[in-house]
Amino acid sequence: MSVPDWIAADWGTSHLRVWGLKAGQVLHHAASDQGMGSLTRAGFEPALLALVADWLPDAQVTPVLVCGMAGSRQGWVEAPYRAVPCTPLGGPLAQAPCRDLRLSVHVVSGLKQAKPADVIRGEETQVAGFLAQNPGWDGVICLPGTHSKWVHVSAGEVVSFQTFLTGEMFALLSEASVLRHSVAGWAEEGFTEGVAQGMERPERLLARLFSIRAEALLEGRDPAYARARLSGLLIGAELAAAKPYWLGQRVAVIGAERLSLNYAQALATLSVPVTTHDATVMTLAGLTAARALLPDTERPCVN
Amino acid sequence: MSVPDWIAADWGTSHLRVWGLKAGQVLHHAASDQGMGSLTRAGFEPALLALVADWLPDAQVTPVLVCGMAGSRQGWVEAPYRAVPCTPLGGPLAQAPCRDLRLSVHVVSGLKQAKPADVIRGEETQVAGFLAQNPGWDGVICLPGTHSKWVHVSAGEVVSFQTFLTGEMFALLSEASVLRHSVAGWAEEGFTEGVAQGMERPERLLARLFSIRAEALLEGRDPAYARARLSGLLIGAELAAAKPYWLGQRVAVIGAERLSLNYAQALATLSVPVTTHDATVMTLAGLTAARALLPDTERPCVN
Repeated sequence: MSVPDWIAADWGTSHLRVWGLKAGQVLHHAASDQGMGSLTRAGFEPALLALVADWLPDAQVTPVLVCGMAGSRQGWVEAPYRAVPCTPLGGPLAQAPCRDLRLSVHVVSGLKQAKPADVIRGEETQVAGFLAQNPGWDGVICLPGTHSKWVHVSAGEVVSFQTFLTGEMFALLSEASVLRHSVAGWAEEGFTEGVAQGMERPERLLARLFSIRAEALLEGRDPAYARARLSGLLIGAELAAAKPYWLGQRVAVIGAERLSLNYAQALATLSVPVTTHDATVMTLAGLTAARALLPDTERPCVN
Repeated sequence: MSVPDWIAADWGTSHLRVWGLKAGQVLHHAASDQGMGSLTRAGFEPALLALVADWLPDAQVTPVLVCGMAGSRQGWVEAPYRAVPCTPLGGPLAQAPCRDLRLSVHVVSGLKQAKPADVIRGEETQVAGFLAQNPGWDGVICLPGTHSKWVHVSAGEVVSFQTFLTGEMFALLSEASVLRHSVAGWAEEGFTEGVAQGMERPERLLARLFSIRAEALLEGRDPAYARARLSGLLIGAELAAAKPYWLGQRVAVIGAERLSLNYAQALATLSVPVTTHDATVMTLAGLTAARALLPDTERPCVN
């Protein structure tokens, strides 16, 4: 029988991904687009059950560990931010109200930083997963994505972090701005040149962006080159601003494969020692580590 | 009888504005949202007639002078870019095909710059209007808007220019990004502080943007302060990048009143001598100047 010991859930703004695990092995995996952003509070439990109901044995309680935006104020249950410096994970976990007696759901807290004001929710679990797999590791973890995070880790704690709007800016500019007429596809050369330009003169970002449109109009520039250059300009500007993070450090990049490789390639040109790691693997390792924070007596939640 | 000598039209991507003029006086004014972006080629003449048909005397041809995106490749008729350095206006004007014998429509050319690649379409007319009103003026003209333009003018010619995506970026970030939850209204203090921060460390823009969201979450920051700060950060970053334009120059700001005052205020803190000028007045002055470029014999256009 393929009955999981517990269920891991990565519940972001736009997606829900779940895994049924037993003795460290993934028995089941499912996903839906019922992210936090599309749900009212009452919608979380049905959204979860829609994916995992078939995995649950009748006579017992299955623990569910959740990370991500489901723990925000607008989520299933608010898991308050923990203030850095602190370990990436820490208790108590927030228990989510649910009616199904087969479920006991706990949500991981995010991290907050007072100055400069910043927050993390979801990536702290990946950081914890990385540290669980690399005990004693000190350095900087870069988590590229919609909101890129740079996290300084020392002695098992998150010391500080910084969020960049890079991914969201790329999506807005390439899909909703005047540049959308000029970008499509991907040509590596454009990325490399964009990173170099963005790094060299990050303060010229707002001007460089329009040049993508002008080059399309005046030079008939290849849209694949243009789109990769747009990405490169933004990531280059991010790398320039993140210099206090990566300078003199080793960097572990955790993210989707292609995006991680793009960042790693750019960091390598700066002579930064860099490794890349799969985001899903780190999320699962982090949620596995979070199980240690569960209360000794797992009670079914009856609300 | 209020019959205009000619008609001025400012035809942008999203709007059409027309004025009926006689002996330098505005007799009529009308506007619609039938911008270039919403029209096929066949739609321009009906969109114009919808606003001006009642102004046209039957027995004669009324010249119409058009500036803006109606002259782009996707517009009514392509008015090819003229290469800088050159005067802001120059012939020949492009004649738009029309069926109504009462109309003779000509469109002003935009400007192009090879390196760095850049284009202007519409603002060249405002620059021409400003120079018509201020003959012999040398300096820098700043035209804030969706795509802000900085234009270096010397001896009656546009020497160089630079476009910034500032206004479009503000619209996307404040209306379509994660920041939209945190910004509403306007508090002047936020603008002033944002400009200072954006100017001082323009390379940190992508990081500073997310701090607007984090401050809302952690500090319950006033959305009016946050929205003004967002605008200030972007304009501050633009001013930093435009330094080669304004440093040691006098600057004339041409734009919508409030936006122009924001730019002027920011420039004044940099000890830049600055004046502000109404965009509509400059557009009308520029189109008036463009009349000198019309062919001697105004023929009705018969397509």
